[in-house]
Amino acid sequence: MTLPREGWARVLGVDPGLAATGYGIVEGDGTSARIVATGVIRTKARASKAERLTRIFEELGALIEEHRPATLAVEQQFVAENVRSAMVIGEARAVAIVAAGSRGLPVHEFTPTAVKESVAGYGGAPKEQVRQMVAVHLGVTLEELPGALDASDALAIALTRLADLRLEAALARRA
Amino acid sequence: MTLPREGWARVLGVDPGLAATGYGIVEGDGTSARIVATGVIRTKARASKAERLTRIFEELGALIEEHRPATLAVEQQFVAENVRSAMVIGEARAVAIVAAGSRGLPVHEFTPTAVKESVAGYGGAPKEQVRQMVAVHLGVTLEELPGALDASDALAIALTRLADLRLEAALARRA
Repeated sequence: MTLPREGWARVLGVDPGLAATGYGIVEGDGTSARIVATGVIRTKARASKAERLTRIFEELGALIEEHRPATLAVEQQFVAENVRSAMVIGEARAVAIVAAGSRGLPVHEFTPTAVKESVAGYGGAPKEQVRQMVAVHLGVTLEELPGALDASDALAIALTRLADLRLEAALARRA
Repeated sequence: MTLPREGWARVLGVDPGLAATGYGIVEGDGTSARIVATGVIRTKARASKAERLTRIFEELGALIEEHRPATLAVEQQFVAENVRSAMVIGEARAVAIVAAGSRGLPVHEFTPTAVKESVAGYGGAPKEQVRQMVAVHLGVTLEELPGALDASDALAIALTRLADLRLEAALARRA
């Protein structure tokens, strides 16, 4: 994979879910960034849970092989309606983690609040404002963003990691 | 992989956990069975969660490659102290599921009650009784069973699937 500019990095952001896993691959340096690929991996409710998790694992693996992101950023949710739904959330997240980890990618987890803070400047920002800021960061209009919230959430997560990478690079230059 | 007798199957049972994942590979026909391999995959608390999950994924993958079980049986727990611990349980379980699923193995989940019922004949059987019955099914003494409960739990889960396979084979002959 060749990045268009020196100092750019490519990040895979994932918003995991058993029925719908959003993904967004972005590249940039934290100042400017662009979408490489984005979408939603959907699984059928009539398939077994094992089949659904395996499908998410394989689709994410194929995306990593194709686009060669340097790192995975994933949403770390701590809130769930109940123990059972918490387990399902954990299951989908672990699949994303091992799809990346088994290919040597470092993994970073971000809470939804951290993502909102990084992308929209405010941890309590409403969903629509986050979407608008994601579009601004990626240099596209709101209409050009993928319609599915899972996909734009994944882009926001990827942008959060990209902003951290920029900070880390700045700190390294100062050291 | 060659099984010692016709009609025998080889099953991988997993009792998943982030710190300790028990595994037990058994082969047999539901009447008699023997241990192929058993143990515990332990991960270090100071490693990141992604590293720990990836290690479990890779160790289970290596066991599957080496011993070629036909199927995975995994404990399906629905009970957790809180939402956060439920997510961790889900994460470890999903890793076992995709380690098997991505290699084409069918996955079966069993509740702890179903395992106790199958192995000890009673869903409320205490742990020590389950261990004794696991030893009986596998033709070993209690002392020969692995000391770690995670490992003997995994053997119990594998035996549960083996008993189901026997039932399925009997039903197929009658059909």
